[in-house]
Amino acid sequence: MLADDFLGQQRERSEDPLPESYVHAFREIDADPNNELIVAEIDGDVIGTMQLTFTPSISFRGGKRCTVESVRVDEKHRGKGIGREMMLWAIDRAREKGCISMQLTTHRDRNDAHRFYESLGFSKSHVGMKLKL
Amino acid sequence: MLADDFLGQQRERSEDPLPESYVHAFREIDADPNNELIVAEIDGDVIGTMQLTFTPSISFRGGKRCTVESVRVDEKHRGKGIGREMMLWAIDRAREKGCISMQLTTHRDRNDAHRFYESLGFSKSHVGMKLKL
Repeated sequence: MLADDFLGQQRERSEDPLPESYVHAFREIDADPNNELIVAEIDGDVIGTMQLTFTPSISFRGGKRCTVESVRVDEKHRGKGIGREMMLWAIDRAREKGCISMQLTTHRDRNDAHRFYESLGFSKSHVGMKLKL
Repeated sequence: MLADDFLGQQRERSEDPLPESYVHAFREIDADPNNELIVAEIDGDVIGTMQLTFTPSISFRGGKRCTVESVRVDEKHRGKGIGREMMLWAIDRAREKGCISMQLTTHRDRNDAHRFYESLGFSKSHVGMKLKL
């Protein structure tokens, strides 16, 4: 699913067996209590995925944040509200973990994503800046 | 320092003793190997601070990211290149931890910050969206 969209095509490799770097990253996420990789399933098939990171923080009076990354729904299952359901689940999960806010960045060109997150109550208050290392 | 600027004034409490929530957050950060709270000192005085979060991730072929948050330099020491030195240190630290990219969000209204990060090579490729919980 990550390799599926117009940005992902350029940067992911979907092959069998998967490059070892993916497996290594999965193990690291799995071992970290502040990172959760979530999948949505229909009849045992994975049709959606996202990653939640819980970050303890000093600012905002010591409030914990939840960052959502890599939100994807399988092309064949888009337009059915699955992304919305996943995000509502994520918001509940973040509250359950004691987070005071949820944050995400999305590429400037993903206009549909901006509208989608705004419809969930997110506001475009920030600029997301990236540096390749 | 967090309470010092135009956005922080509204949301931080700087008093003695500090509210317990700050102490609790500090302990959580301290205990988490994927979170580092960095201070810059001159003659034993803390004059700058930032938080680095290292996030294992599946996307980008399993590449780890470094998120920088809460970058602050004491008002009395601004304009001396301390923020730049801190960020250059952070970039080195992220490379050392094996990160493939560095990311941050900064409020739309912090125009000086945008220019500062752009001068370090960051690009404003993303929109940062937030939701209060």
